[in-house]
Amino acid sequence: MSAFSSLSEFRTLLAAMPSIDQNAMSGAQERNGQLTKPPGALGRLEELAIWYGGWRGTDRPRVGKRQVIVFAGNHGVTAQGVSAFPAEVTVQMVANFEHGGAAVNQLSRVAGAEMSVHALDLDTPTADFTKDAAMSEAEVVAALKTGWDAVDSDTELLVVGEMGIGNTTSAAAIATALFGGDASEWTGRGTGVDDTGLSNKTRVVSEGAALHASDDALEILRCLGGRELAAMAGAIASARAKRIPVIMDGFICTAAAACLAQAQDGALDHVVAGHLSQEGAHGKLLAALDKTPLLSLDMRLGEGSGATLAINILVAAVECHSGMATFAEAGVAAG
Amino acid sequence: MSAFSSLSEFRTLLAAMPSIDQNAMSGAQERNGQLTKPPGALGRLEELAIWYGGWRGTDRPRVGKRQVIVFAGNHGVTAQGVSAFPAEVTVQMVANFEHGGAAVNQLSRVAGAEMSVHALDLDTPTADFTKDAAMSEAEVVAALKTGWDAVDSDTELLVVGEMGIGNTTSAAAIATALFGGDASEWTGRGTGVDDTGLSNKTRVVSEGAALHASDDALEILRCLGGRELAAMAGAIASARAKRIPVIMDGFICTAAAACLAQAQDGALDHVVAGHLSQEGAHGKLLAALDKTPLLSLDMRLGEGSGATLAINILVAAVECHSGMATFAEAGVAAG
Repeated sequence: MSAFSSLSEFRTLLAAMPSIDQNAMSGAQERNGQLTKPPGALGRLEELAIWYGGWRGTDRPRVGKRQVIVFAGNHGVTAQGVSAFPAEVTVQMVANFEHGGAAVNQLSRVAGAEMSVHALDLDTPTADFTKDAAMSEAEVVAALKTGWDAVDSDTELLVVGEMGIGNTTSAAAIATALFGGDASEWTGRGTGVDDTGLSNKTRVVSEGAALHASDDALEILRCLGGRELAAMAGAIASARAKRIPVIMDGFICTAAAACLAQAQDGALDHVVAGHLSQEGAHGKLLAALDKTPLLSLDMRLGEGSGATLAINILVAAVECHSGMATFAEAGVAAG
Repeated sequence: MSAFSSLSEFRTLLAAMPSIDQNAMSGAQERNGQLTKPPGALGRLEELAIWYGGWRGTDRPRVGKRQVIVFAGNHGVTAQGVSAFPAEVTVQMVANFEHGGAAVNQLSRVAGAEMSVHALDLDTPTADFTKDAAMSEAEVVAALKTGWDAVDSDTELLVVGEMGIGNTTSAAAIATALFGGDASEWTGRGTGVDDTGLSNKTRVVSEGAALHASDDALEILRCLGGRELAAMAGAIASARAKRIPVIMDGFICTAAAACLAQAQDGALDHVVAGHLSQEGAHGKLLAALDKTPLLSLDMRLGEGSGATLAINILVAAVECHSGMATFAEAGVAAG
């Protein structure tokens, strides 16, 4: 059962989330200093392992069950001609996920992760946000709850991804509304619109962000988001409540997560950025959230693909931390 | 049995190495265009999979046996006080590799790789290259052969790494001798020397590069290298003869590989750069070889650690390529 039934209750929940376990983190830091390597020689792997241990409450963690959840939604704003692909592709790709044929299926297998897909009311697209709020409060709360409930309590590492024709437009509008600046700074080519398409998409983003300007990040999520974005936000919050570290995916996932960060300081402390997407404004969005990506491989697929690819980086960091010998154990001179 | 018994025979062998299979690469390129994703959306994963298929001679490859080989050697140049760690650490770390306690042991496990370690005459360090050639021809040929013979014929992906107190000094001297410029441009802090140590190390690199200046890259390897560097070069060449793609590690591995590239155009066509090390001149060395690293995580450990961490990136690329459904198979509209 979900812990909230309104945006207001969800907001209250966000304010009462657990923090990292400082004792576990200190213990992990101490262990890190004793491992058979020059200090700092594993670079970001060291900070990742210490951070992961802190969230899991142990100085010597392992990464057990890894869960990848893909949420799919349809967007009324596709009526504005913002995507190079027809909206029917969302449901076709959901079938592809279910049959194991998409990129994220292969990536989940390599990462040793359990993958599932949740299609959110694909027959009922959100409203065109250039004309109306994308979702009612009941709709956004239902989507948040779908995400919240999708996270298994025995999961030890979470990735959330998305599929939804039109959703880079939604993400760009959210980023514009949350962080300001011109819509063109936040609008990219998505799955591949041409120059005319990009110009039209920027107009749509600009109109939506202006129509739904608000100081309330959860209202921005309701008015400009899609169901799959709200579900990702709900899942990321759910993971926090369960002290499950999260690897964040690309532009759309980051836009959804940004709504949490702007609603509550520190709401993404349990989240690491999996990769820098090629989608134009992702780097700017990560910088606004003070997140440094683990990978940068020119990917721009969504589906949680970049974050799922990063799972083995985190697993490797934790395995080094918890599996290596100390100088004393190995009889190695510490320099 | 090795295919050479002198530097001259090794040079001849390098000139007769196989090239990528253009037909297989074209087939892989064609398949890539039919997969259920927007064109190019998997970024570098797409080019990796196509390149890997080209070397393996199939348009739909899988990555079978992954082999990680760590070579260890001792360096007479440590007499010049170039390392923060005592030379005894080389043999201590070899024991640590054998007992499974080092970083590369954990990373190999996560990568599904078989790992082995080859200690090369640790009781007989190379000569101090500020005074004499590091190795005789017989010694460098023996080290090349150790590397050549260490690559199993059923390996489908190779990583070579190293351990050797003093070997960033050797690598910096090789880079200076191969590519010119001031020794300070190629000399970094290794396992962590202070400013005074760095200044002394730069002097040593400069003296060595001047003493052993040559147009012959294999002579540079003999005079300034260590046994583990020559063994890595031998293994990389052996992989090429067997059409086994290689992931290259950090500064020292790249310096060893650079000797092959300078000895024979295209000798590293079957090699991808696994990561950008934090060791100062690695980026400059990769640029000189026209290699773009897959990862950049501030690592500077050696042991093949960065390249081993990158194995799952390549595996993921190949699994996406060969495991994904095509638009036709999945019934997805191609945009």
